[in-house]
Amino acid sequence: MRKYAIIGVGHVGAAVAYTLVTKGIADELVIIDTNEKLARAEQLDLQDMQGRIETRTIIKINDYSELADTDILFITAGNIHAYEEKQAQGNRWAEFEYTKEIVKDIAPKIKASGFHGVAIDTMNPCDAITQYLQENTGLSQQQIFATGTFLDTARMQKVVSDQFNCDPKNVSGYVYGEHGESQFTAWSTVQVNGLAVTELAKQRGLNLDELEEAARRGGWEVYVGKHYTNWAIATCAVKLSQAVLSDARAAYICSCYSEKYGTYVGQPAVIGKHGIEEVTTLPLTDDEETKFKHSADTIKEKFQLLDKQTN
Amino acid sequence: MRKYAIIGVGHVGAAVAYTLVTKGIADELVIIDTNEKLARAEQLDLQDMQGRIETRTIIKINDYSELADTDILFITAGNIHAYEEKQAQGNRWAEFEYTKEIVKDIAPKIKASGFHGVAIDTMNPCDAITQYLQENTGLSQQQIFATGTFLDTARMQKVVSDQFNCDPKNVSGYVYGEHGESQFTAWSTVQVNGLAVTELAKQRGLNLDELEEAARRGGWEVYVGKHYTNWAIATCAVKLSQAVLSDARAAYICSCYSEKYGTYVGQPAVIGKHGIEEVTTLPLTDDEETKFKHSADTIKEKFQLLDKQTN
Amino acid sequence: MRKYAIIGVGHVGAAVAYTLVTKGIADELVIIDTNEKLARAEQLDLQDMQGRIETRTIIKINDYSELADTDILFITAGNIHAYEEKQAQGNRWAEFEYTKEIVKDIAPKIKASGFHGVAIDTMNPCDAITQYLQENTGLSQQQIFATGTFLDTARMQKVVSDQFNCDPKNVSGYVYGEHGESQFTAWSTVQVNGLAVTELAKQRGLNLDELEEAARRGGWEVYVGKHYTNWAIATCAVKLSQAVLSDARAAYICSCYSEKYGTYVGQPAVIGKHGIEEVTTLPLTDDEETKFKHSADTIKEKFQLLDKQTN
Amino acid sequence: MRKYAIIGVGHVGAAVAYTLVTKGIADELVIIDTNEKLARAEQLDLQDMQGRIETRTIIKINDYSELADTDILFITAGNIHAYEEKQAQGNRWAEFEYTKEIVKDIAPKIKASGFHGVAIDTMNPCDAITQYLQENTGLSQQQIFATGTFLDTARMQKVVSDQFNCDPKNVSGYVYGEHGESQFTAWSTVQVNGLAVTELAKQRGLNLDELEEAARRGGWEVYVGKHYTNWAIATCAVKLSQAVLSDARAAYICSCYSEKYGTYVGQPAVIGKHGIEEVTTLPLTDDEETKFKHSADTIKEKFQLLDKQTN
Repeated sequence: MRKYAIIGVGHVGAAVAYTLVTKGIADELVIIDTNEKLARAEQLDLQDMQGRIETRTIIKINDYSELADTDILFITAGNIHAYEEKQAQGNRWAEFEYTKEIVKDIAPKIKASGFHGVAIDTMNPCDAITQYLQENTGLSQQQIFATGTFLDTARMQKVVSDQFNCDPKNVSGYVYGEHGESQFTAWSTVQVNGLAVTELAKQRGLNLDELEEAARRGGWEVYVGKHYTNWAIATCAVKLSQAVLSDARAAYICSCYSEKYGTYVGQPAVIGKHGIEEVTTLPLTDDEETKFKHSADTIKEKFQLLDKQTN
Repeated sequence: MRKYAIIGVGHVGAAVAYTLVTKGIADELVIIDTNEKLARAEQLDLQDMQGRIETRTIIKINDYSELADTDILFITAGNIHAYEEKQAQGNRWAEFEYTKEIVKDIAPKIKASGFHGVAIDTMNPCDAITQYLQENTGLSQQQIFATGTFLDTARMQKVVSDQFNCDPKNVSGYVYGEHGESQFTAWSTVQVNGLAVTELAKQRGLNLDELEEAARRGGWEVYVGKHYTNWAIATCAVKLSQAVLSDARAAYICSCYSEKYGTYVGQPAVIGKHGIEEVTTLPLTDDEETKFKHSADTIKEKFQLLDKQTN
Repeated sequence: MRKYAIIGVGHVGAAVAYTLVTKGIADELVIIDTNEKLARAEQLDLQDMQGRIETRTIIKINDYSELADTDILFITAGNIHAYEEKQAQGNRWAEFEYTKEIVKDIAPKIKASGFHGVAIDTMNPCDAITQYLQENTGLSQQQIFATGTFLDTARMQKVVSDQFNCDPKNVSGYVYGEHGESQFTAWSTVQVNGLAVTELAKQRGLNLDELEEAARRGGWEVYVGKHYTNWAIATCAVKLSQAVLSDARAAYICSCYSEKYGTYVGQPAVIGKHGIEEVTTLPLTDDEETKFKHSADTIKEKFQLLDKQTN
Repeated sequence: MRKYAIIGVGHVGAAVAYTLVTKGIADELVIIDTNEKLARAEQLDLQDMQGRIETRTIIKINDYSELADTDILFITAGNIHAYEEKQAQGNRWAEFEYTKEIVKDIAPKIKASGFHGVAIDTMNPCDAITQYLQENTGLSQQQIFATGTFLDTARMQKVVSDQFNCDPKNVSGYVYGEHGESQFTAWSTVQVNGLAVTELAKQRGLNLDELEEAARRGGWEVYVGKHYTNWAIATCAVKLSQAVLSDARAAYICSCYSEKYGTYVGQPAVIGKHGIEEVTTLPLTDDEETKFKHSADTIKEKFQLLDKQTN
């Protein structure tokens, strides 16, 4: 049996839940939210659809003890409106203050439940809050990781594929670093239809910086139009979980702990039944290595600063 | 190629779009919304996920001319907030005023596009507005129908299956009539695991009226908790469309035109490539026939009254 | 994790394996066959396809110790050619002699493995050999059941739906009894689009006996044309397993133990995590009850006779 | 509507048909085989399963006129037993004699049908017979292509992923050339988890020639154990077809016409609604270019020789 749980059913958590149910991925799903009416509403809406799909998923709500034998735990809590207010003030790390409070509430409950599966986080600021979660739940660094730049990479693939009029799946390579401002596309890793994008860009006079900017702007356009983003992030989260359940040892980028930099940060890894099976070190250019270090340091420093301030 | 279009990407339209993309059902999808930023946001969010799924769906926005060769058109426009305000005043048909305006805007555009596929409506008041759409688009009564009590029936199945601790799919039978207050469960059509629910209720001392009320309350609980409902209604809409595309001649209940009562109303039908292939007349009890007539008359009368008032 | 095993990868076992892999249903799959080259060939063919599908399934072969934590065990062994020879001599129970030998080989190994999941059998003669398996493995009657007339019912649905030009899924009701000659369609349970087929047949002057015969002939036509049948039987087997994994408590017909008749026989049941959660007793007509008793008695008597003869 | 047709329902054609039906990919499927009983048997087996799956596919048989509005035509005819006999005599191109006769039979019928979709071939010798088909049907070189080394590449991915204990999907890169003896793995294109396999091989002292041989031996092991291969080849064929239907412009390797070498040969291409949208030229090493030319020349020469001999 595949048993999933989700803490926090805002737009992202709800889209994850729907994906797990409509595609018959989860056999059992536990939804936890401090807003009990919301948890109940999602439970009912997902149950109401089950007369119309091929599979069945048993759906439970608001019971931490169910985590004891849960395979995959998504942590998708957040307060998008708190975020909006802060963001207006130009503070990208604004959610940390809020999500730290969430972690302080949920981490002891996760710990007490006896949860020993794999946890996948989508909260923001993604890298820092996942580290905070790891520290507070006592889960191993292998067991807990975040979507991180798996989403940013998907957006880069989309933007590059538009440029070359092809399937986003034809675009390989990664966006490294923070799921935030200091991230960067490691263009040396990017291929389009098997061809190095750096070569293609030269031939066509393309400005890769502009493509990088377009990917970032795309995420922003979604946010401005809908006031949240959910489909792509939910799809990324579910995909990571499937690699865990089938012990696929699949190569994806995500936010996981870097021994080298002493922080969670977006980097390629192999995902299997224990979560992060290994981190993959690709031969980046010197410039990319510098950017990577900078991004990791940014996460680490801000984390330390804000951790102190808010305790 | 399976070509879909959606007019209106509020919560329902967006959930329909996501379902079509994540399950690889649509080869091409056209999203139309008067809120251009919203249409663009949904397009981008759905495109961003395509590097992470097996299939590809080409997604276009805001171009009515694309309807010329569209197979399935979902009309999922609405203004849930206008609805909320009216509803506070105790007016169940409150959305009609608003959705009629939408129809006046979109019907000529649909007509002009040369659309000749099948249209599935989820707007409210479901039965009346679908009739209004049919009249204003000039589409045949076969070609355009609505989810209607297909959703209410799913909710009844859920509530009954809870009572008997079984899969909702084990519950057959239908909720007839208006997708609204005057609807009723035709208990004589309902079986649980192949057994007549009326017999089972007698044996167990169950009150079927209470079950009917529970189903209605369930829909309300979703609405109260989330401020909208989307997963179950989107699942119903997509399921109906799949029956059209594969010419399945599947037996579902939906809101379609009744020659007998001269109105769109929730009744069992056979769905195939032309839309409504035939209406099915089940042997209801006298009491059920009376309720059905009452519900159909309610729709018809209100439609005529409101049609006059608002023109 | 969903862990499946299959004993016997002839055409049915291989089709079950492919279904589990191509639809991403199994996370892990253990294939066991006395023909080691065949087991290896299926393993390789299924592994070769994994670069081309979205999900991953880990595939192992020929290790009974893997059954210790297997959730679902399919037993799909058989010798279609032995069967053909015997069948030419007019002996429908011909496979029993052969499949009993298989059970004598595999039952102790299943027992020794510590298997404690749910076993689903497709061997022939289906009802008798499942009982023999149950007795020899020591699995509970709840834990082991067979596809039985779930397949014959699907064929009846197909034939009836052809007659009424509709989706086979619109046809409810069951073929009861032996997965063999003495089976019968309980027409009193059959509805088409919600209408009693007995009524419809009267109106249209349809001969239901002819439809029953057509369903049987259909199975035969498959056999004659392909020399085996696999797609429909594999689909039935997988569907039953999914109800177990998600604890769906779904109402299906299958061959399970009848307390009343003291034998495995095709009858409606509710399928959940323990296998057979309960047997459903539908109100059959007197004639149907007689046929059901006859069919159950046939299985029981032949089983006893052949059990003695071949020991 | 997605309309598919299959000419030839041996093991490969049948597996393609089952995949299209069980995954709900095809709305309509036409099966054509000179063995009418076999075509009928497959039709029935696939119809019998439709009461047990979520979607419906209308299945027709043996009517070439249905090709007029078919989107995708698979040509999967062959005579595996004729092949076996010849192969015993050490003649790899043995099937050509046989499949040419098939093409002479079916090509005029395809032409007469007015078929204007995309045709995907799996017959052997794959590259030569596809060219022969193209010439005889009058379909454009864009419209008709073959699975070719898409399968061999999948096998290479499997073998390499075994070596590195990872998901086959983590292995990128291609096997070029003939779907036969003269093929080769272009190791310069192969990456594992984003790392160049040539580098990894050096570090680990791996012999890439042995991996190449293992992939070839794997295909052979499947053949020896099952007497045919079907799951992986069917999966490859269906995947190619999905890229056509959704105009995915996906980068896959397949056998398509090379202007440079004047023959069909396995090379990377972009697949979209017209079939082959463009051929991709990757920067191979000199050694790989030589092997590629050799493989293309081999196909061309044998084709010309055998074409003369057998006319």
